[in-house]
Order: sequence, then C-alpha cells, then structure tokens
Amino acid sequence: MLICRTGAEIRDFVRQARAAGKTVGLVPTMGYFHEGHLSLMREARKSCAAVVVSLYVNPMQFGPREDLARYPKDFGRDCAMARQVGVDAIFAPSDREMYPDGFSTCVEVTGMTDKLCGLSRPGHFRGVTTVVAKLFNLVTPDQAFFGRKDAQQALVIERMVRDLNMGLEVVTLPTVREEDGLAMSSRNIYLDPGQRREATVLYRSLRAFREAVKRGERDAGRLRGIMVDMIAGARGAGIEYVEILSVPDLQPLEVINGRVVAALAVRFGKTRLIDNTVMEV
Amino acid sequence: MLICRTGAEIRDFVRQARAAGKTVGLVPTMGYFHEGHLSLMREARKSCAAVVVSLYVNPMQFGPREDLARYPKDFGRDCAMARQVGVDAIFAPSDREMYPDGFSTCVEVTGMTDKLCGLSRPGHFRGVTTVVAKLFNLVTPDQAFFGRKDAQQALVIERMVRDLNMGLEVVTLPTVREEDGLAMSSRNIYLDPGQRREATVLYRSLRAFREAVKRGERDAGRLRGIMVDMIAGARGAGIEYVEILSVPDLQPLEVINGRVVAALAVRFGKTRLIDNTVMEV
Repeated sequence: MLICRTGAEIRDFVRQARAAGKTVGLVPTMGYFHEGHLSLMREARKSCAAVVVSLYVNPMQFGPREDLARYPKDFGRDCAMARQVGVDAIFAPSDREMYPDGFSTCVEVTGMTDKLCGLSRPGHFRGVTTVVAKLFNLVTPDQAFFGRKDAQQALVIERMVRDLNMGLEVVTLPTVREEDGLAMSSRNIYLDPGQRREATVLYRSLRAFREAVKRGERDAGRLRGIMVDMIAGARGAGIEYVEILSVPDLQPLEVINGRVVAALAVRFGKTRLIDNTVMEV
Repeated sequence: MLICRTGAEIRDFVRQARAAGKTVGLVPTMGYFHEGHLSLMREARKSCAAVVVSLYVNPMQFGPREDLARYPKDFGRDCAMARQVGVDAIFAPSDREMYPDGFSTCVEVTGMTDKLCGLSRPGHFRGVTTVVAKLFNLVTPDQAFFGRKDAQQALVIERMVRDLNMGLEVVTLPTVREEDGLAMSSRNIYLDPGQRREATVLYRSLRAFREAVKRGERDAGRLRGIMVDMIAGARGAGIEYVEILSVPDLQPLEVINGRVVAALAVRFGKTRLIDNTVMEV
C-alpha cells in the first residue's frame, strides 16, 4: 500500500492506475478508522480496480471552539487496517499541502447547508465541500464513497457533484452500528462508560420514529416530540437539534410525505454525536 | 466540427479524444468572436490535439442592471470562424443545461475579487469561477486559454485552479488590439463612431503609464493621475476605475515595485470597456 503525502504523488498514482486501464475509487476520511470506514473501503474494493483512501483532518470544516485539536489520531493503526481491507493508496497530506499561503477559494452549496449541522456549525459545510472538491480534483475518482451517518453531508456532496458537473458517482452506504445500535463514530471513544450506555437513546429514538410512522403517524411535530421526549429522558443528553426534513432538499415539513429524514445531534458532555434515519412514507 | 448542446455530448467527445491519446485544450468564450478569441483558438490548436471552444453567455456573471439581454450573439458566424481556425468541437449549452432547477452551488475566490471589476460588478467573479469550474469539470482540459484583456479574471482563475487542485494549465495570451490600439471586445460594436474614436484614449493612457514608469516614475498616485487626466479629457468617457495594483495578489500600492498592473474600466454611453497593462518594475 502506497502512502502519499503530496498532491503530486497521489496524481502520479492515479495516472499510473488509469494508464493500466483501472477504475479509481476514493474514500474520503478523517482517519481513526472504525467499521464504518472499513465498510466504505470494502465496497470501493469491490467496485473499483484501484482504491484510494484520503486521511485528512480538515481544519476548514471545524469551528474555532470545536474539537479539531483533540480529534483522535492513530496513523499507524489506520494504515494497518486499510492495508488489511486491500486499499491501494493512502493520501495523507499536511495542512500546508492542502492550504498553502494565499489560499483563498471556497466551494459552497447554499440552501440545504443552513440547517441541521450547518446551523450549529456555521461554515462547516463550506469546509467540507471545499476539501472534497480538492480531493476529487486530485484523485479524479470514478466513484467516491460516503457513509449515511452524516446524511446532510452526503446530500450536500451529491448536490455539489451534480451542480459543478463533477464527472463521478457518489456512492452512499448504510451507517454501521455497534451491537446496541449506537452509530459508529471516531468520537465515540470520548464517551465515558455512563455516557456510552445513555448514548444508545439516539438509535432508540430513531427506531421509535420509524415505528410511529409505521403505525400511521404523519404529523412531524408529534413525531419530533416522541424523539425529543425519549432523548431528554437520557442522563446527560443535551439536544442540539432533532429535525424531520424532506430528502433531498432538507426542507421543513409539517406533515411527512415522500422521502424524509429524521436527523439529530446530541451532546454527551463535550462529545457531539449525530445520527439519522431515512424513510419513504 | 462537432456542435454539442449538452454536458453528456461534450463529455463523450472528450472521452473519445482521450481514448485516441489526444490532449485536450479548452477556450471558454461568450461568443461573438473577434481576433482576440481566434488568437486563443489558434494557440490551443498549436498546443493541443483536440480543441474545444465553449460558447455560453453565462447569466450568473451578469448583474441585474447589466447588458445580459443585449449581449451580442451570432452563432452561425461564430461557428464558421471557429471551423476556419480548426476547432474540433463547440460546446454551446442552454441555461437549463448549465443551471437546472435546484442549482445551488458556487465557487468563489476571495480577497482578489473585491476590487476592480469585482467592486463595480458584485457577484461577477463568483459567476465566472462557478461557470469556469463547471466547464473545466465537463471538458477536463489539459490546458485552458484566456486572454489578458481581463487581467483580473485570468488571475482569479489561476488562483482557483491552484487552490482547488484542478489538474490543468491556465494559458494566458496577450490582448489583441485594433490598429489604433483599442482592445478587441465583443462590446466594441455598441460604440457609435464618435465614441469609437474617443475610446482609443484607453490604450493611449496605458501607453502613457508605461512611458512614465520607464522615465522613472514610481509613485502610484501620480501614475494614476496621468491616466485619469488623459481619460477625463476624452469626450463622453465615464471612469469606473483606474487602478495600479500588485500582481498576482491585486493589492493596492503607494510606490510601484515588482510586477504591477494598471487596469481600467471606462464607460462610453452604456458601453463599458476594460483594458490593462502589466509591467515588471
């Protein structure tokens, strides 16, 4: 497995892969891999002849008071895990490589980025779309793989790819969960044992949402109420948002109909967790 | 010469060119060709095995009170001229093809777009960088060709290409001028005979700037004064800006030094003309 630190190196790798007639898959990550990341890499391995994983904790998508400095890192372990699932190249650039002096360009999707995580993390999605556009331009993948845990991120990236005519396919894969339903996240290691137990309320609240919809409930306010009440009952849970929106436009709904997402962000202590479920009503 | 109306068609053309081992050159234009456009196409013809010219009057880069509706058009004549210089494909999409319902992404370069044309045409460069990013993604050229008449545009696009790691080379070519020095522009046809005569003052003021610098003048205020006085002496000339800035950062200067640009935008009646000259001091 090749480890590339510069844009020139990863371009070279891709050029050689293309010259050999290979399709290229990209899995953009911030590292500290869990089973969710690995499921993306395995899928890329199945569909593409050459698999690139980018590993970069992008400062542009973190707010000034967020957890950039303490974001978990273990490059050696990440490389071992990636190698084991058959990744061909890791692209792990420095901040200087990604944002050299004088950097002053951004890519922004408007409209669907002013809610959910976009509301509580201003500038977050501008950072995401800018760095993902850079990665797409460097790797020029045929397919790029994203998890559905960050539903909004996947929708925003799909929008960017369509709007800017980026010639690639965005593949999204289901959220991978622990046995008790907690969505896998690099941030789960921040949770103390008590928080870890309480955090299962997120998945349970999404299940309660699905069951209420199946029973015929269509009122978004009441559905939201069911989830909020459940989460508020968990010790130490601080709700940042619980929303039910249309997919893919992320518009607010009074009565649910068509494709909808129930999405939430909840803090346990300093740790911010997100989760969601998409339903066709 | 192939005429493509959709992104799918131009992608197909490029795919076939690539499969035949050809390099691809792109000349982005708004049509109504003059010798300036043709010089870009000829240069592309010399350096690239396949030459694509995009012809699209991009509404996103026009302000609400600008000349979008009356921008000159002659598709038949443009095609004949392009064919004659050996262009392989014209990409002339509709607005609907470029900006379908729900379009909501932009590419923006900050810092250097808040002056010169960016100041008098707010949002103009956001429109330029967004459409050029789309064209680059559709055509994936090895080289893209721009004229130096819009010095700021060329610098902004070079910044975008570098910042977003677009894997292509921006080639800029000298402004092509009429015999009396007026920079060629599709907008020159708006000028009545009197305005056309007076408009030569733009080039003459740039020459006066160069001569003053050669004589040893380094004070940006005095240099600007020479140009402003000259232009103000022409009948019907309304100065929008006359600026002397650093290259490539477009920062204001008191004493000129290094690479500098003298840039101007002047109206004759409703017609807005731009011109500039770059010097190494």
